[in-house]
Amino acid sequence: MPSLQFWFELASTYSYPAAMRVETRAAEHGVTVDWRPFLLGPIFQAQGWNDSPFNIYPVKGRYMWRDLERVCAKEGLAMRRPSRFPRGSLVGTRVACLGATAPWGPAFVRALYHANFVEDREIGAVDVVAGVLRDLGVDAASVLEQTQGSEAKAQLRANTDEAVARGIFGAPSFLVGEELFWGNDRLDDAIAWAARS
Amino acid sequence: MPSLQFWFELASTYSYPAAMRVETRAAEHGVTVDWRPFLLGPIFQAQGWNDSPFNIYPVKGRYMWRDLERVCAKEGLAMRRPSRFPRGSLVGTRVACLGATAPWGPAFVRALYHANFVEDREIGAVDVVAGVLRDLGVDAASVLEQTQGSEAKAQLRANTDEAVARGIFGAPSFLVGEELFWGNDRLDDAIAWAARS
Repeated sequence: MPSLQFWFELASTYSYPAAMRVETRAAEHGVTVDWRPFLLGPIFQAQGWNDSPFNIYPVKGRYMWRDLERVCAKEGLAMRRPSRFPRGSLVGTRVACLGATAPWGPAFVRALYHANFVEDREIGAVDVVAGVLRDLGVDAASVLEQTQGSEAKAQLRANTDEAVARGIFGAPSFLVGEELFWGNDRLDDAIAWAARS
Repeated sequence: MPSLQFWFELASTYSYPAAMRVETRAAEHGVTVDWRPFLLGPIFQAQGWNDSPFNIYPVKGRYMWRDLERVCAKEGLAMRRPSRFPRGSLVGTRVACLGATAPWGPAFVRALYHANFVEDREIGAVDVVAGVLRDLGVDAASVLEQTQGSEAKAQLRANTDEAVARGIFGAPSFLVGEELFWGNDRLDDAIAWAARS
């Protein structure tokens, strides 16, 4: 089956509608999804930004929130602007790395985006992440203990390094072989490309 | 008839596919187009950039050229990466201001984008702009003389000031009343919004 790499950052606004739809849309075209969590922070820092560009450039940020509202409305997705942005995504992203090949992985990612962008919860907090895992029937204590291990930490660093090496500069991004697509707006194009490959 | 403001910068890459399609697509939905040329330079400078962000951030630039190629292919538009980017757009933009309410205005804008992004011509040069005008049967000498007048200069400054005041930070942008849409990807959404208004 053709496959698509879905590169996402849990704090990223436009990754939210992409994460909620990618699996269903891909399946409609016979494409499987390889979930690749990474951190945007180190990538932004390399560009000289110590915050989200949506905060650094307020005019762009104001537009983004309105646009995200429209995008979500169009896709029938709930959206409430979080009271804090961006939220820390380190713990959740390490969990997502561990879940990337587990049956609960995609559901965990979607639940965390929902917690952030619909329920306005502090997804950077360990107890919030634990609650989301428990709601999915996952052994939260065991998974969270694993996130402290060197393997989980190395996996996330490797993902972020690979993102940089492959020319990724924002989230969400999609890769089909060497072909890169950036942004929620490119989700359907990326899936069509994968289906043709 | 409902109308849509189309804000464009002649040096802007993604403004090219938008400019080529906006009038036809809008007409299909009974929407008229108000052509609003402006300069991105002063807007970028206010953000601390003295060049296109696609040059300042080469990873983003590399992606953009490949993406533009795909976008144009999808729309059936020719595209050849210009040997110089961005090209000076001052003279052409002043002409576009004068043409905004003239019958030849939209055709001039499309011809100049074609000269830049298909024919790789130096659209910043007065003789290239003059040639494009002459090909459209316009009195090039008279129009170019007008661009040196204080009225044409004031018109372009006013457009750029208005863009800033209305929250525009990139090109192309579309405005329907107070509703702002940014990017070639939002062309159809903006037209649909105008048609509903």
